[in-house]
Amino acid sequence: MSELTDITALLLSRIRDVEDYPEPGVVFKDITPLLADPAAFTALTDALAELTVRHGATKIVGLEARGFILGAPAALRAGVGFVPVRKAGKLPGATLRQAYDLEYGSAEIEVHAEDLSAGDRVMVIDDVLATGGTAEASLALVRRAGAEVAGVAVLMELGFLGGRARLEPALDGAPLEALLQV
Amino acid sequence: MSELTDITALLLSRIRDVEDYPEPGVVFKDITPLLADPAAFTALTDALAELTVRHGATKIVGLEARGFILGAPAALRAGVGFVPVRKAGKLPGATLRQAYDLEYGSAEIEVHAEDLSAGDRVMVIDDVLATGGTAEASLALVRRAGAEVAGVAVLMELGFLGGRARLEPALDGAPLEALLQV
Repeated sequence: MSELTDITALLLSRIRDVEDYPEPGVVFKDITPLLADPAAFTALTDALAELTVRHGATKIVGLEARGFILGAPAALRAGVGFVPVRKAGKLPGATLRQAYDLEYGSAEIEVHAEDLSAGDRVMVIDDVLATGGTAEASLALVRRAGAEVAGVAVLMELGFLGGRARLEPALDGAPLEALLQV
Repeated sequence: MSELTDITALLLSRIRDVEDYPEPGVVFKDITPLLADPAAFTALTDALAELTVRHGATKIVGLEARGFILGAPAALRAGVGFVPVRKAGKLPGATLRQAYDLEYGSAEIEVHAEDLSAGDRVMVIDDVLATGGTAEASLALVRRAGAEVAGVAVLMELGFLGGRARLEPALDGAPLEALLQV
């Protein structure tokens, strides 16, 4: 318990509030001070890797682009493969593509079809859970590829945006782990 | 020597040629099979971390987006901070911005001004050295922030595109390390 408290305090101390970004009235949670601090970044990576192992994942899916920065080191630390989920049009091979709604309009993400298959158990990692749209679409991709969902792990959950409730059906009983509530 | 040969063979065996991407006649070097293989990805990370330590770097700059996947784990392994260089408009804080030429038109990259400072020695990491435009712009950002250039390290150098020659003035004697020539 005290160990978890220590990590929480350390991580929180390295996240910077940037006001009025990306638009007036919004406070953006900037993780770049955390990335620049090896002790804090190591603690974060160890925590994400521990969740990956605990939930029996065999692969980590990282969501472009900050999910790459968190997910790739966690995959190495956990000893599992890393699979990038990218915005549409960035992956060169045969892909599965999934649309999701944005505040205005929609967007699409993709994964290489051959990077995930039956027998894989996948932990989806991103920096922030906001409305949950990207995470929801990534879970759909994992299942369409024939793989199993081990869970979703994020550094920060923005609870007031309701992402957890939106994600619940897609999780279908798998855990949503958030290291920080902000 | 035999150790380096082994790593080279391992890394090469996990890079996939995708023909006619992003346009007809081009062969794209896809690193996603390497990322999905923990042994190969670990070998790559160890090699990049070793170069980082050998050249006395105190920070790694990773270039969006595949440079995030390679640079962040290498930073953790080397025990140094990680600093993302992003496409313009993605970083929330006060930034330095640098333009560079593309085949058609130009683009801009940014770094948080406070993430780099005098006393830092920076290793710039990306997956591929192609024409060298992004790497050249990132070296300019490092110097404008008051930091020193420790070098540039990439997984693959596409020698026929002449990036090494273009980068030479910006390197100003610092090393350009490429694990593979492709």
